[in-house]
Amino acid sequence: MEARPAQEQPPGVCPHFHDAIELIGKRWTGAIVFALTEGSLRFGELREAVPGLSDRLLSRRLRELEREGLVARSVEPGSPVRVVYSLTEAGAELRPAIAELKSWAQRWRA
Amino acid sequence: MEARPAQEQPPGVCPHFHDAIELIGKRWTGAIVFALTEGSLRFGELREAVPGLSDRLLSRRLRELEREGLVARSVEPGSPVRVVYSLTEAGAELRPAIAELKSWAQRWRA
Repeated sequence: MEARPAQEQPPGVCPHFHDAIELIGKRWTGAIVFALTEGSLRFGELREAVPGLSDRLLSRRLRELEREGLVARSVEPGSPVRVVYSLTEAGAELRPAIAELKSWAQRWRA
Repeated sequence: MEARPAQEQPPGVCPHFHDAIELIGKRWTGAIVFALTEGSLRFGELREAVPGLSDRLLSRRLRELEREGLVARSVEPGSPVRVVYSLTEAGAELRPAIAELKSWAQRWRA
């Protein structure tokens, strides 16, 4: 590939992309979102889906994801009540990006 | 969305995806790869493309990306010599994932 001529302005990085990749790329966050792409899960199910993740960090990441509007927490009545986590519309729309990165990872990082 | 029945095994997170998202999501790394998707760049051009990134951290991230096989460094003869960075085949194949995440980010994080 040719480097651009010196007089040409180098391309700036899209700041929204930069924000998004570091949001999803934060330690454990991508794995949690990935697990939820298959459907809603309870806390304990999420913990099992992401080996190595402590309860404390899972709670913290879920709160962050709720605050960022990617994950919704809902309480289902019953005895005991069930608390389930699922992707919001914004979270669910990450699926194509996740699928592309998974496909890349299986080709290049397996 | 329905939570899965308790007796069903929750889906495990693809470990290759997990590795990949945290590789690309590491602070500044995604932005550097993004800048290089447009073509090869010199160190100074990369620094301009990613505002806020220090020389020291840019050097460190470029070495990490070289070690991971996503970026290649080449020296072009001349006076002074030009050092340019470009994506390897593995790095270039991140383009579809980056494009999907950029599109998501422009919809949900702008």
